[in-house]
Amino acid sequence: MAQTHKPAHAPTCVIENFFPSLGAPNYLIKRIVGEPLDVYADVFTDGHVILCAVLKWRIAGGSRWFESSMRPLENDRWQGRCQFPSCGRWEYVVEAWADEWLTWKKHFKAKYEANDPELGIEAREGARMLRQAAVRARAAGAPDSGAELEELAEMLAKLPARELMEVLMAGALQVIMDRFQDRSLSTTSAQFRVSVERERARFSAWYEFFPRGAEGRADKHSTFRDCLARLDDAKAMGFDVIYFPPIHPIGVTNRKGKNNTLTTVPGDVGSPWAIGAAEGGHRMVESKLGTVEDFEWLVGEARARGLEIALDFALNCSPDHPYVKEHPDWFFQRDDGSIRYAENPPKKYQDIYPLNFHGPTWKALWRELIDVVLFWVARGVKIFRVDNPHTKPVSFWEVLIAEVQARDPEVLFLAEAFTKPRMMQGLGKIGFSQSYTYFTWRESKHELTEYSKELTQSDMRYYYRGNFWPNTPDILPHHLQSQGPPIFKVRAALAALLSSNWGIYSGYELCENRPLPGREEYMDSEKFQLVIRDWNAPGNIKGFLRELNRARRENPALQLYDNLRFHHADHDGIIAFSKATPDFSNRMLVIINLNPHGPSSGMVHLDMGALGLGPDATFRVEDVLHGTHYEWHGAHNYVSLDPKATFMHLFRVA
Amino acid sequence: MAQTHKPAHAPTCVIENFFPSLGAPNYLIKRIVGEPLDVYADVFTDGHVILCAVLKWRIAGGSRWFESSMRPLENDRWQGRCQFPSCGRWEYVVEAWADEWLTWKKHFKAKYEANDPELGIEAREGARMLRQAAVRARAAGAPDSGAELEELAEMLAKLPARELMEVLMAGALQVIMDRFQDRSLSTTSAQFRVSVERERARFSAWYEFFPRGAEGRADKHSTFRDCLARLDDAKAMGFDVIYFPPIHPIGVTNRKGKNNTLTTVPGDVGSPWAIGAAEGGHRMVESKLGTVEDFEWLVGEARARGLEIALDFALNCSPDHPYVKEHPDWFFQRDDGSIRYAENPPKKYQDIYPLNFHGPTWKALWRELIDVVLFWVARGVKIFRVDNPHTKPVSFWEVLIAEVQARDPEVLFLAEAFTKPRMMQGLGKIGFSQSYTYFTWRESKHELTEYSKELTQSDMRYYYRGNFWPNTPDILPHHLQSQGPPIFKVRAALAALLSSNWGIYSGYELCENRPLPGREEYMDSEKFQLVIRDWNAPGNIKGFLRELNRARRENPALQLYDNLRFHHADHDGIIAFSKATPDFSNRMLVIINLNPHGPSSGMVHLDMGALGLGPDATFRVEDVLHGTHYEWHGAHNYVSLDPKATFMHLFRVA
Repeated sequence: MAQTHKPAHAPTCVIENFFPSLGAPNYLIKRIVGEPLDVYADVFTDGHVILCAVLKWRIAGGSRWFESSMRPLENDRWQGRCQFPSCGRWEYVVEAWADEWLTWKKHFKAKYEANDPELGIEAREGARMLRQAAVRARAAGAPDSGAELEELAEMLAKLPARELMEVLMAGALQVIMDRFQDRSLSTTSAQFRVSVERERARFSAWYEFFPRGAEGRADKHSTFRDCLARLDDAKAMGFDVIYFPPIHPIGVTNRKGKNNTLTTVPGDVGSPWAIGAAEGGHRMVESKLGTVEDFEWLVGEARARGLEIALDFALNCSPDHPYVKEHPDWFFQRDDGSIRYAENPPKKYQDIYPLNFHGPTWKALWRELIDVVLFWVARGVKIFRVDNPHTKPVSFWEVLIAEVQARDPEVLFLAEAFTKPRMMQGLGKIGFSQSYTYFTWRESKHELTEYSKELTQSDMRYYYRGNFWPNTPDILPHHLQSQGPPIFKVRAALAALLSSNWGIYSGYELCENRPLPGREEYMDSEKFQLVIRDWNAPGNIKGFLRELNRARRENPALQLYDNLRFHHADHDGIIAFSKATPDFSNRMLVIINLNPHGPSSGMVHLDMGALGLGPDATFRVEDVLHGTHYEWHGAHNYVSLDPKATFMHLFRVA
Repeated sequence: MAQTHKPAHAPTCVIENFFPSLGAPNYLIKRIVGEPLDVYADVFTDGHVILCAVLKWRIAGGSRWFESSMRPLENDRWQGRCQFPSCGRWEYVVEAWADEWLTWKKHFKAKYEANDPELGIEAREGARMLRQAAVRARAAGAPDSGAELEELAEMLAKLPARELMEVLMAGALQVIMDRFQDRSLSTTSAQFRVSVERERARFSAWYEFFPRGAEGRADKHSTFRDCLARLDDAKAMGFDVIYFPPIHPIGVTNRKGKNNTLTTVPGDVGSPWAIGAAEGGHRMVESKLGTVEDFEWLVGEARARGLEIALDFALNCSPDHPYVKEHPDWFFQRDDGSIRYAENPPKKYQDIYPLNFHGPTWKALWRELIDVVLFWVARGVKIFRVDNPHTKPVSFWEVLIAEVQARDPEVLFLAEAFTKPRMMQGLGKIGFSQSYTYFTWRESKHELTEYSKELTQSDMRYYYRGNFWPNTPDILPHHLQSQGPPIFKVRAALAALLSSNWGIYSGYELCENRPLPGREEYMDSEKFQLVIRDWNAPGNIKGFLRELNRARRENPALQLYDNLRFHHADHDGIIAFSKATPDFSNRMLVIINLNPHGPSSGMVHLDMGALGLGPDATFRVEDVLHGTHYEWHGAHNYVSLDPKATFMHLFRVA
């Protein structure tokens, strides 16, 4: 029952002030398949009538509507709930109407009770409505209901008042009338759009490594075929997304040397983000890694292990990229005919040519870039980590994601935009499945609390899924540089438990922490060279990461994003938060000593409601990391966290 | 330079999160001619460029845009200001673009300072931009600027770096470049709509009287020709809008008797809201009042006195209304062929037939009703008080107001909707110039403060202009019933000074307060009978009302609506508030003892910033009602208000 035609009558109801509402018709609310969405709207009409409202949703542009009744709250606010059975773009509307039948029934009852002498005329009006409903029933292919309604209509005109009331007020009649409501004068609201994605969009643990460094050797460039051990290790640590920096041929012209120097020595492998060489561009793989077929083989191996490989989608071209010769019009050309390299004057990045997304041949460029993504989708890649999306037009990403997800709604996109808040939010609104965050630099309890609240409890929760990374190949934050393995554990626990999406750049498990002096960057960064690594070096925290990811897998509350709630801890160095499933069947309480080197202790004051507990409840908390458990009484409980024993509790509330 | 075509390029900027924003594209922000509107929006784009944004506005659908630059605040928020030179519907947009010239200039400067060897190539790019600007200048009919730009372009390619910098950084060049900006890649936002009305929409003092009672005689039905004394009296009291209840023929069938009884006796005049008789309907005047020509004469007499006559637009039909016979399809027909009368079961209102706004011939009905308004507009009526708009479709009012104001943008509409908040707000959003409010029932300081704040400081200030009435023919609130003239003065002062729009129903100046027992309605209401009145009866407060209205007229701060600010008074019975013009050239401070019978005194703590005063300022306050004055020091001042002397101060802050 598609209803997109313009109604023949003027609007009868006002339907407005929707929540959630992202502010523009092209913005997308995000859901996971099966995840309910509660929709609120103000609905009202003129006069003294009984109003009905339904929430309707369908695959965008589809013909089959799903529908559920809305219920009035107070002050003309209505609430409805929808749930999306499959991935893809969906849309929903609210339809409302003054229900003639219900209004008539209410009036009839009042008149009956007042012994109104005109009940006879009124009953005939009711009979007319039943006969009209019978017509609708027959048109809807329900002749039995039609016959029943006609029979009742006959009766209505004849019955004495008292019996008439009994018939009218019967629940069974209303059930039929609800099925065949008269919506001929209904009003339908504006449409709202939803991006429905698979669960991995909300619940994921990422492990990033450079395939060329899979074996941890400086003397040998690893290939895709050398990556199985890394996959197995990541799997053992409990990660489920393996993310590769760009795997494409690396430019030679102006290639960067070790530690981002401007000159190279023979054997320097270059930055994988300087994409494109004589052998090919974004559809090719670096020959030292193998072939496209080798990559497809690895994708299959990952899949067999329950892992997915995510590719980096980085729209940088080296001067050697085939695009430069074939489509110089896709770049910015300078007055001397040369192509403009990237710069942030006076800094120059002569190994990179930015693309001109609004040049005269922009449509061909956009087409090509979308096709590049589809090329890798066809080779089994269903997740893309997008490099610096904030330096390309937001409208480009909107088009790209829409088209790719229309072809394959399983494809997910992670936005690597470390930039100003509005741009980061905007990229979320137009469709990025996940986004990097400022978590990497949030250190104190206050910072972590306020920022996590903003992400998970403000309107952002409807369109922005933060993916928490304690490190990246570009960022070795100051706090990781000097405090040894304990801080690596603290930051991993925060990332993995505050957000349902988290990830590490490999080496984190080995607590690698050598910076460029005074910088938040790695010394001898793998971005520019092969590095030697013992993947099982002593002091690694692989066992701890495995436990974290195991707890996430075993506890559904940790797989949700917007269920984060904070609890007050007296001690400034102790952070306490919880996550529960909506039915409270799984409730996890996390208490972490943010100081990795000294003991902290004090009272934690629980928000008992957030845990589904009465204010004076007695309950058992079981530490799923340590196997210990405690009986707690009420909201106020003492904790003592000495890193020598444990710096954290990860409690399941029984 | 109309710009409504779809741009040939993809959006380059994101422009969103507008403030104010009423939530739907058909909702109207309200302004008065010449009143500035500050517009805020988030504007951002990709990459490291210099962004420009302008606010543009025009008569809806017009071809001539007005324009002003927007300025960045923080966090990608931009602000612009527009001002509308004439009444009518206006629309505005934001246009934004990455400015190539400004970006290039910034980069050039950085390169110059870094002694970049490629300055020559860069200068040639700058020259190209100047030449392109020259083309735009010539196209815009500014050949002189074109020539100047071409000359500069020549120079740019030749000058040594240092001189080049001097030329580039000259303010004069930027002024020309600002005139001929390259907006070929600009992005334009969604459109927002504004209803611009004449000042009377914001600043008005209404006086309602029944023309049939103009002479205050029970033995004689006054006519329009008898109304001059009332006009003069209202004028003397300082009112500027004279509002008449319906002046149309009154139905005979089921006419209501005195005090709303169901039976009449000969001579009963009936309720003017039961419109329509054999002699005519909404385009006719009740013959006992005179003729349409008499009415037009009175409109002219009013105009000569600087007064306006507002008519009641009440869409009730008596059973005798010509529509009933001519257009039975415009009503609800019952199964026995009769027309459905108004009811709220079990209550029946058999003297009134409601119209069916969504019936099969709704278009003809709407057309007729709009034509009725235009009929009276043609007879000089420019203000309509709309009776019970909330019992007719909001969409109907939207269409009616749009069409009437398109014909004559001077016409104003006051919504008499005493109903639930969302409906009252909705009627404001779609275009009613003014609206009745709950002021009539707000009594305590807390209630008055919170409600006035909601009206004048929340988003409502953009679309809802509250008109404060202490009484109406339907409402004699409890607090007026037993406290004599002092409470009438208190309520008048609150209405006239809290809002820039206020009104009274006549008899208020005489402190009439006889209720139907236990009700908030008048005994022997003028709605149903002629009443005897001495318009100069002893104990009247006409002098006080004159002083209130004089103060309003003489003090521009009291003519503004959303400039209301409250100040803390320790005593719960003392309310303190102020209004100032934006430039603080006029500042009024009101302090009222809400208890009309006993003295109240205590400290008043002024929000000095709201008065444009420093925290420790010494200032003089002059009571414009009493001619007294005080020297005050700082924020904290003692007031004592004894109703025997005065219950209030109306201070002008010097």
